[in-house]
Amino acid sequence: MPELRKDPITNRWVIIATERAKRPMDFGKVPEESKGAFCPFDYGNEYTTPPEILAFRPKESQPNLPGWWIRVVPNKFPALEPGLKMERYGHGMYDAMTGFGYHEIVIETPDHNATIATCEEKQIEEMIWAYKARYKALAKDPGIKYILIFKNHKRDAGASLAHSHSQIIATPIVPKRVQEELSGAQTYFQYKERCVFCDIIYQERMESVRIVEETDLFISINPYASRFPFETWILPKQHTHDFGEIGEVQVQEFATVLKKSLLRIYKSLDNPPYNFLLHTAPTTGEGKQSFHWHLEIVPRLTKVAGFEWGSGFYINPTPPEDAAKYLKGVEI
Amino acid sequence: MPELRKDPITNRWVIIATERAKRPMDFGKVPEESKGAFCPFDYGNEYTTPPEILAFRPKESQPNLPGWWIRVVPNKFPALEPGLKMERYGHGMYDAMTGFGYHEIVIETPDHNATIATCEEKQIEEMIWAYKARYKALAKDPGIKYILIFKNHKRDAGASLAHSHSQIIATPIVPKRVQEELSGAQTYFQYKERCVFCDIIYQERMESVRIVEETDLFISINPYASRFPFETWILPKQHTHDFGEIGEVQVQEFATVLKKSLLRIYKSLDNPPYNFLLHTAPTTGEGKQSFHWHLEIVPRLTKVAGFEWGSGFYINPTPPEDAAKYLKGVEI
Repeated sequence: MPELRKDPITNRWVIIATERAKRPMDFGKVPEESKGAFCPFDYGNEYTTPPEILAFRPKESQPNLPGWWIRVVPNKFPALEPGLKMERYGHGMYDAMTGFGYHEIVIETPDHNATIATCEEKQIEEMIWAYKARYKALAKDPGIKYILIFKNHKRDAGASLAHSHSQIIATPIVPKRVQEELSGAQTYFQYKERCVFCDIIYQERMESVRIVEETDLFISINPYASRFPFETWILPKQHTHDFGEIGEVQVQEFATVLKKSLLRIYKSLDNPPYNFLLHTAPTTGEGKQSFHWHLEIVPRLTKVAGFEWGSGFYINPTPPEDAAKYLKGVEI
Repeated sequence: MPELRKDPITNRWVIIATERAKRPMDFGKVPEESKGAFCPFDYGNEYTTPPEILAFRPKESQPNLPGWWIRVVPNKFPALEPGLKMERYGHGMYDAMTGFGYHEIVIETPDHNATIATCEEKQIEEMIWAYKARYKALAKDPGIKYILIFKNHKRDAGASLAHSHSQIIATPIVPKRVQEELSGAQTYFQYKERCVFCDIIYQERMESVRIVEETDLFISINPYASRFPFETWILPKQHTHDFGEIGEVQVQEFATVLKKSLLRIYKSLDNPPYNFLLHTAPTTGEGKQSFHWHLEIVPRLTKVAGFEWGSGFYINPTPPEDAAKYLKGVEI
């Protein structure tokens, strides 16, 4: 049974996955997936995953059989479990919580070798619709405070399967980094009576040196204080705190800007490992005026992370102005 | 000229290393160091590093020549530079600072192939004395607020040279993660009128299931809310906020516990990559009652860091109680 534990110094919650506990010998080097290896996300292997929660498939096709173009399933090895009763308890001076929550997998394409940077924009739109559908459904659970949508691309970014997929984790608490953004944005709002993200968009459009892509409704930038080389954020230009409110035109433009931004990274940096994370407001409604949803793409190019992890102090060897120049310079 | 930039949302400072700016082609895979390759930290190659700041060497030996057993030099490619005037300035809505600070390398041994987990305890004592000497010297600069001592072991933990060394970065600001610990410890102190770290030591000694090593003056534990598998903290048992005050008996016992803890990790996990970080109070004197210096060792066993980076939400697949059992189980 997974358990959430709170660090008594920083109040940071950690998921301790007690069920599938790893022993020292389990940490050996994992080889890259071999060609032709069995893949649970391929057509015909649907029976090897837990039954699908959502699938975009022709009306006449059967659930858990081929024909789908997007498929969402519970994670077979979940970090959190929906079946648990949410309960807080103490352990001496420490605080803990049952590992209640949801952990789902969005299989982004039936094509084992496809990568979203190079696939049809239409497919990315569908992926975003799947994100929205699951977001709305999970937000209805009153025990859930936050829904985090993210993607690990390639093994060096934490992907354990090569077949293109993203993940959704719904938690009974707001993750620390999101809470920091919420609190920081709230402080800025109190001082300026404006959204800090809206101000960033204004400043970036004025300077025009860190913009990667721009449409009527979306912008993608290399942020001024980028932690990582080629870090790229995508933001809706109009103030919206809640990703769940995304509409049809926005989905189209978000797909365009996401695809183009990823393709520029793919071409400039030779299809690097990356993570992306969607930061939206908590499902509790907090941050309506001050928060602004966005997606952060972090290419995994450097290994210097241990120091950064431990100190929160980042050293970025590529100024974002240079990164934007390189990214805009490639033909797509 | 390096520049410090502040993220306007979270107020996190980032070092933008503009001098040695990396282009896309600079991020290719770096091969492991080949046997017999030139090493600037070996005897006879002292002339290839900037002149030494401190060296433990026989009285009759000459600076910047062989004979030393510990040698401290400025980083040839520093993230921060002591020659810059500390200046804060604005850039539109953004905040920045000149990249003033210190970045030094502690060469821990002249032996190219030695590793501190298996070397003589005496050598680790000397390393700690070098840390203390540089700590005291850098703390005298009124522009410096924080001194971070850390080590990257092996390439996968960010070490660019195989020869055993650690780093010291002195900064004009307190790194975010340290600030979080300081504030959290302060809040706990206000509520309990006790140091949270002292309480952790008490609780751990009472439960006795997460202790790795213990002497009269030091304890090493796998913390209750460990973020990473086999994460290990070393703390002085007596309340002390300032590492700079460490005395002779403490240095000896700290060396013993550090060596034994590292050796247990080395043996249990087959000499894994790791980082360690020394968290002490800022040089401004803050945290005298509430903060407690300690060293955090983080073996780099999992690749799932992208999600964790972006969310601050850690999933740890090895409960600390299991980690302690494995670590204590190996013969050393």
